[in-house]
Amino acid sequence: MNMEKSSTLVVFNGDLDKAIASFIIATGSAAMGNKVTMFFTFWGLNILRKDEYVPVKKSFLENMFGKMMPRGANRLGISKMNMGGIGSKLMKKIMRDKNIATLPELMEMARDLDVQIIACAMSMDVLGITREELIDGIEYAGVATYLAAAEESQVNLFI
Amino acid sequence: MNMEKSSTLVVFNGDLDKAIASFIIATGSAAMGNKVTMFFTFWGLNILRKDEYVPVKKSFLENMFGKMMPRGANRLGISKMNMGGIGSKLMKKIMRDKNIATLPELMEMARDLDVQIIACAMSMDVLGITREELIDGIEYAGVATYLAAAEESQVNLFI
Amino acid sequence: MNMEKSSTLVVFNGDLDKAIASFIIATGSAAMGNKVTMFFTFWGLNILRKDEYVPVKKSFLENMFGKMMPRGANRLGISKMNMGGIGSKLMKKIMRDKNIATLPELMEMARDLDVQIIACAMSMDVLGITREELIDGIEYAGVATYLAAAEESQVNLFI
Repeated sequence: MNMEKSSTLVVFNGDLDKAIASFIIATGSAAMGNKVTMFFTFWGLNILRKDEYVPVKKSFLENMFGKMMPRGANRLGISKMNMGGIGSKLMKKIMRDKNIATLPELMEMARDLDVQIIACAMSMDVLGITREELIDGIEYAGVATYLAAAEESQVNLFI
Repeated sequence: MNMEKSSTLVVFNGDLDKAIASFIIATGSAAMGNKVTMFFTFWGLNILRKDEYVPVKKSFLENMFGKMMPRGANRLGISKMNMGGIGSKLMKKIMRDKNIATLPELMEMARDLDVQIIACAMSMDVLGITREELIDGIEYAGVATYLAAAEESQVNLFI
Repeated sequence: MNMEKSSTLVVFNGDLDKAIASFIIATGSAAMGNKVTMFFTFWGLNILRKDEYVPVKKSFLENMFGKMMPRGANRLGISKMNMGGIGSKLMKKIMRDKNIATLPELMEMARDLDVQIIACAMSMDVLGITREELIDGIEYAGVATYLAAAEESQVNLFI
């Protein structure tokens, strides 16, 4: 058994507010010297999408899902009071005004702190998301990899 | 203290996508040799409802709640982009087309792997759901039973 | 390392049903002799707001957010079938009729059982919520305090 402390987060939701909470916990834990693994699944995968449109051959349904889901950290809505994106814009404005780290900044911080970012391969298949559409520097794995990390972790969360 | 590894999941939400995630984690963990307990509470109880209508004497409010909530694993919506059930149907079609296990199949797998399925007695009381309306082979208990399992578990999640 | 058992909950959502679930788990765990910490962040802060309006000098955006978010445990909606507040009212009526503890009663119980209630300072800043607006007898801290508690806990949940 590994004696190093660790935290493992499942990021299931793709809302801006929950994404921010996930990365604040992840970077906080990594800054305290813990090994941190984030496992992005279902709508959480949208957080990892590249900002720009990536042309990929997809089935009709995959294409439709892809078009309807937000493309990357800058386009996420918030889980309450989103009001068609206005809530999300306001929250980002407030955070900028108060000098609180934005989601892209938190994600960069996570990378600098060696937080392990894993995209759930099965969810990618279900939602028709390909590797080319996701940001660089991440890993791809399934539930067994997640569970192996989770079993050794002191802090396990499903967000 | 029990030296066997274990996972305990609270399944609070009754969305198809979260139910699938719950059972993938539960069956994955059980397949790795862990003891797995799933505690279904509030809307999560809808996952355990029988497919067919079960006539039970209920109060007006209980009846209304019962009618408005989805009856079983085949009728759940998804937590995002459900679009009145279209999103849920599309996700099920995609999963069938790609040969990914459906929720009813995952639930059968969970049973075969001896995953312990507990329905929260207090939530059943609040939502007016009776034992006759839930699938067979499950247990009924309260928060103390959940907590006793959770305290011994390496992986605890609230889904 | 602390040998006392403990549970640590992040309460991110501000829905009545999730708040009730949080406090049932928290009071249940405390009643079993565990140290319990609840960390309220983002919309979860609304659970801790005082019932009455507290005049505080705020920016335009903070004021708007403050007006749109529910003020305290008695005004929360439920996460499903809220129907503009009707669902929430019905659930409260059912719980009263069945003599199940209401959210304010559960919160009082939590206090009696010495459950530690922490409001997330960063989220307060983002949502423009001040100390004067929150109930008495709580603490204020950041993610490092949360993580320190979480790392020592057997049960960690994100609700």
